[in-house]
This record gives sequence, C-alpha cells and structure tokens, in this order.
Amino acid sequence: MTPSVNKPPAHATKAIVLFGHGSRDPLWRQPMDAVAARIRALDPQANVVCAFLELTLPDLHTAVAELVGDGATRITVVPMFFGLGRHVREDLPKLKETLHQSHPAIGFDFLSTVGDDPRVTQLVADIALG
Amino acid sequence: MTPSVNKPPAHATKAIVLFGHGSRDPLWRQPMDAVAARIRALDPQANVVCAFLELTLPDLHTAVAELVGDGATRITVVPMFFGLGRHVREDLPKLKETLHQSHPAIGFDFLSTVGDDPRVTQLVADIALG
Repeated sequence: MTPSVNKPPAHATKAIVLFGHGSRDPLWRQPMDAVAARIRALDPQANVVCAFLELTLPDLHTAVAELVGDGATRITVVPMFFGLGRHVREDLPKLKETLHQSHPAIGFDFLSTVGDDPRVTQLVADIALG
Repeated sequence: MTPSVNKPPAHATKAIVLFGHGSRDPLWRQPMDAVAARIRALDPQANVVCAFLELTLPDLHTAVAELVGDGATRITVVPMFFGLGRHVREDLPKLKETLHQSHPAIGFDFLSTVGDDPRVTQLVADIALG
C-alpha cells in the first residue's frame, strides 16, 4: 500500500523560518520571498516560511507554530537583518528564549544574522569591487 | 624624480560608497564596517567610505564630496539595504539624480541593492540550507 503523499511530512524535511524586520511597504519583503523561492528550488521538500518582527505578518511565534503543526521537530531560524542593532542584540535573544519555552521538544538552530555572516561580508565586498 | 606618495591618488583607485540606512544604535553599522574592511583587505588602494540615509553620519552627499575631494572621477555606490521598500524605490533614485546634478563630471555606478542581487539571494539560500 502506498500512502497518498502530496506534501512530505515536515519532520522528514528542512523546516526554515526566514525572519526579517517587516515594513508597512508590501514590496519590502521581496528579497526575503526570493530567498524562500530559491531554497524551495534547491530543496523542493524544504518547508520554508517568512516571519517578521513587526509591521508584517506572520510573527515568529505564529510561523514556528505553523511549522510545528506541519510536524517539524527541528527548525532553522535565519535572521534576515543586515545591521547589528538592538533588534538583533536584544529582541532576538528574547524571542529565542520564549520559543524554547513554548516548544521545549523542538530543536531550534538560530543562524548568525545574515549581515554578520563572513560569507556575506566577503560576497558584498566582491560585488562592490566589481 | 619620484613623487612622495603615501596614499595613491583616488583617480587611480576604486572609489566606493557603502550606503546604508543608519540607526540610532552605534553598533548597528558593524556589518557595513566589516565589508569596508574586507574591501580594503582585497584592494588596499580602494578608497571606501560608509554613508547613511538617516540617523548616522555622514550622509551620501558628504561622503561623495569627500571622495571627489580625494580626486575620484568615478564612484561606485553600493546600496546596503536588504528590503526593497520606499527607501530603495523612491529615496535612492532621488539621491542619484541630485548626485548627478551636483557632480556632473563624476561617473556614478549605482549597483543593485544588496538584497536584490541574485548572488546574495543564492548565498543566503545556501546558508539557510546549511
């Protein structure tokens, strides 16, 4: 008997949250959507959602709850911030703590903030030099 | 006769402005400073400055005037924004126009906004997939 599977169960897939600042401007998020689309192209089974600190929905807790509802047991969070301001240094650690409290059975991999990743630093330097 | 040259004239070097949003938080700009340092490591003759749309100094016009004062005749501007909001879609084209008016003899290369560069999209997708 072959089970009917349209979408693979999330526990067997990569579950990823791209977490950005958010904006009143609906076009602001396009680069985040482009990264999500690229991830899906590279790994069609990846379960990728975007989430936002403010002004745009969903928030991080809602996005994580959706992935957990889909069966994710391990979730990668990618902070899509370029600057290293208070959002990254203060808001993010607090959110991380409440996520751990809300979902003690879930493993969270919080990656480096995108702007703080040396591979991004190198690439932007290469781009600037042309 | 060998001229005494401590700093190469800017017209013989790459002149680059890393142009970001700015923040009240003095640590916010660290990733921009890291990119500037990386550029200088890759090309020690590059004349690189950071400039900001708001909240942090110098602004774009001041930074460009500094490079022109150093002898730059061609200036690359790298918009260090991740989102594609009104700052990028509206403020940036206006700034570009006034720069052309203020410095008609200078060639400006406005690169794509960092978040909109497909190489950045690809790299962040790769980072997210681990």
